[in-house]
Amino acid sequence: MTDKASTSRIPLTVLGAGAMGTALVRAWLAAGHPVTVWNRTPARAEALAADGATVAASAAEAVAANRLVIACLLDDASVGAALDGTDLTGRDLVNLTTGTPAEGRARADWATARGARFLDGGIMAVPPMIGDADSGAYVFYSGSAALFEEHRDTLAVPAGTRFVGADAGFAALHDVALLSAMTGMFAGVMHAFALIRPEDIAPKDFAPLLVGWLGAMSGAAHQAADQLASGDYGKGVVSNLAMQVAGNATLLRTAEEQGVSAELLTPYMALMERWLAEGHGAEDTTGVVELLDLRRGTDT
Amino acid sequence: MTDKASTSRIPLTVLGAGAMGTALVRAWLAAGHPVTVWNRTPARAEALAADGATVAASAAEAVAANRLVIACLLDDASVGAALDGTDLTGRDLVNLTTGTPAEGRARADWATARGARFLDGGIMAVPPMIGDADSGAYVFYSGSAALFEEHRDTLAVPAGTRFVGADAGFAALHDVALLSAMTGMFAGVMHAFALIRPEDIAPKDFAPLLVGWLGAMSGAAHQAADQLASGDYGKGVVSNLAMQVAGNATLLRTAEEQGVSAELLTPYMALMERWLAEGHGAEDTTGVVELLDLRRGTDT
Repeated sequence: MTDKASTSRIPLTVLGAGAMGTALVRAWLAAGHPVTVWNRTPARAEALAADGATVAASAAEAVAANRLVIACLLDDASVGAALDGTDLTGRDLVNLTTGTPAEGRARADWATARGARFLDGGIMAVPPMIGDADSGAYVFYSGSAALFEEHRDTLAVPAGTRFVGADAGFAALHDVALLSAMTGMFAGVMHAFALIRPEDIAPKDFAPLLVGWLGAMSGAAHQAADQLASGDYGKGVVSNLAMQVAGNATLLRTAEEQGVSAELLTPYMALMERWLAEGHGAEDTTGVVELLDLRRGTDT
Repeated sequence: MTDKASTSRIPLTVLGAGAMGTALVRAWLAAGHPVTVWNRTPARAEALAADGATVAASAAEAVAANRLVIACLLDDASVGAALDGTDLTGRDLVNLTTGTPAEGRARADWATARGARFLDGGIMAVPPMIGDADSGAYVFYSGSAALFEEHRDTLAVPAGTRFVGADAGFAALHDVALLSAMTGMFAGVMHAFALIRPEDIAPKDFAPLLVGWLGAMSGAAHQAADQLASGDYGKGVVSNLAMQVAGNATLLRTAEEQGVSAELLTPYMALMERWLAEGHGAEDTTGVVELLDLRRGTDT
């Protein structure tokens, strides 16, 4: 480290000392950044004083302490409540609070109107991964590219960074899209474990097979992306929709044999059948994305 | 290759020349195995004569030609229909036809009663992957361990081999369990693509993020396996069920904002809420596997 590097660690403020806020504060402190912390319940912030954090008595005091302000609170309403009445003029507000794309956009407008630059973030990690460069943790950022560029090194301290656009809603959208896909995957994983549960099959022997298979098959998303971009759902198809629908019958009969409810799989199978009925049997399944569009057919 | 190796390629019979049967025949022929093939519709078998296959006029003739008989037909009923009236005495029957665990077990009993050894298989690949050692394709086998050991090298020609037990139903069970998990994952992937579809986000930029995230998160199946084996669903929990249920609200609100039906995610979310209501909020989500058991609470 050069002296320049060691003296260039800028001070920052963190609003929120929940599990994630605490992990963020500790990561920045460990990297040598002076950190001012505020939490609605003072005890959680005070616990960080032992790690070297400065505890602010109010959110207004915390915001006044540093130009770079990170918010990591319960929800968007908490961000509004904490920052109401604080002076955001000239502040760089980075909002790592979980929210929706619309909340990110509205908060960006709100912050900009109060004289701040705004960056929204979606953290793709759980607290134990923060500050661990090998954990794979990263944060989606969107909003002010200028803010992101200026503070890029500081933001990279707790986790990797991925800027996904000037639209302040895009960080949350990427975050939620990935969590939604994961939710579907976990539903499938639970169904798979339920199928083997009545049998003399050790879950620890089965898990590596499952993980290997899902990892290999997740690559199909690249082909789906290509099909969605071109609008040609038949592009590169190997196992077409008609074959997949036929295969679903074996999955359902097996669930029945094993005494397992198929409730986690049937909505997707029903969607595939609807798309098949619309004449897409020779294409890939990707076109079902159109059926999920609630505005479908409402365009004039 | 030694002379011994080159002369030890045993002859075999393949029943069925659909897309998968054809790929199998070609892989064995390419490796120097003499192959006799039969197909209900003769034209598809005859197409393989050009590759060096011997075409049998009937299933009985094909079965009589070689001790090792591979069946790769439309479904289990087709296996019964093709083999009805053939002499299976002393035959090693390997059934690669897609089916359920119960079908595999019943077919094993049926074949054994007719004097054959029986091995059931579940192919984890699509036809273009067969015979390509780098494709990652493999086949789950279960049933006669003696048959598997004796023919292991021959069976390894078209795809990798994984013997999963003497229970003839286990190959199909592993196959279907992995396909079921994949179905859930694909449902999640379709939801994710539907979320970004209204926005100026290129699917090809989004897909690598999705694939990387699903690959990283699939590792959670190892922890779920550990929890299921121990029965302790709180073991190693980081993000507990109560936190996950709270997070689901953001996923649902985002779907609504983006005009996307949440039908693919809601059954799993409902299951999580049922398990939460039963008092498991501080544990991991894994316990929902119990709720999928249709025989739950019926034990006396």
